Amino acid sequence: MNDVVLPNKRPGGRSAQVQALVRTALEQLVAEQGRERVTVPAVAERAGVSASSIYRRWGDLSGLLAETATRRLDPNRPLPNTGALREDLTAWAQELITHLAQPCNTSLLKAAAALANGDSDTDCLRNRRKEALTLVEQARARGEHAPEAQQVIDHLIAPIIFRLVFGGDPVKPELAERLVGELFAMVAATRS
Amino acid sequence: MNDVVLPNKRPGGRSAQVQALVRTALEQLVAEQGRERVTVPAVAERAGVSASSIYRRWGDLSGLLAETATRRLDPNRPLPNTGALREDLTAWAQELITHLAQPCNTSLLKAAAALANGDSDTDCLRNRRKEALTLVEQARARGEHAPEAQQVIDHLIAPIIFRLVFGGDPVKPELAERLVGELFAMVAATRS
Repeated sequence: MNDVVLPNKRPGGRSAQVQALVRTALEQLVAEQGRERVTVPAVAERAGVSASSIYRRWGDLSGLLAETATRRLDPNRPLPNTGALREDLTAWAQELITHLAQPCNTSLLKAAAALANGDSDTDCLRNRRKEALTLVEQARARGEHAPEAQQVIDHLIAPIIFRLVFGGDPVKPELAERLVGELFAMVAATRS
Repeated sequence: MNDVVLPNKRPGGRSAQVQALVRTALEQLVAEQGRERVTVPAVAERAGVSASSIYRRWGDLSGLLAETATRRLDPNRPLPNTGALREDLTAWAQELITHLAQPCNTSLLKAAAALANGDSDTDCLRNRRKEALTLVEQARARGEHAPEAQQVIDHLIAPIIFRLVFGGDPVKPELAERLVGELFAMVAATRS
């Protein structure tokens, strides 16, 4: 932990504690009142912190919701590296499905969607885009013919998030395998 | 107009007028107060109708938002029928982008996302799924090798909606052409 980069200048332990209190308060309020009724002041009151400390750390309610929905997908966790991009992407997408299909996380994802600022990526999307790029570059370094990171977002991540948010069939980890297969068929066709 | 199927038993003219009042009230309230603060009772009050007439016609706020966001995409409009699925899908997706990229409609789409019931398609998705199926069946009847309707949803509609809701780059009609090209590369690869 490097406290110097934290904007609120509190010691790391206290800062981590505040973050945990805020996330727990958010999850409780969403469960109790529904996601559309939750506000930053209400979260602050429940957590026993000031609203300004929430705005300082997360920017706005959308940032807090998106970060809480995906916080267990630690941006510093090791990504799959099996030696084949197809297996890497499948494992990565399955992890995303398993995480976001949990009802509480789906709720937070929908709330983040409603509040997302169209001009800038949400945290959730920005981190997934970075991860897609890492996996693609890792495969290219091995000499694999790989899709563009943007194609991974459009044809693997977008269908998963779209199904989670707008419903229809339940989203299961098996979906990852089909979508990755379709992405690779697309890449094979543009190779020749 | 067949009044017999209308659940509220009002004459068609009165019913259409009520719908127009409700949609206008919704758009005004979203513009004035932001989408997250709008409720069915508030829309009813502004429109001068009873809340129960809104619940009867649209089910809930999510249904009203989704239907208003896409209402100019009349489900009875003629779909493209150029003689080639590739051109049909491109024109259809471009129409969707042009419509939903308007800020008011993007707002309504995000609000509908937040309130979507994960167990059932929203109006917006259900109508697009029907249209995808119509276009695919039309192409198969001409003897074309066509993707599944589900693939059209996953690889053409999902990336468009995902980009509109979660941001990043602006969504322009040219995107339709690239995505349709990728979908057709995928289908060509699975043909052989």
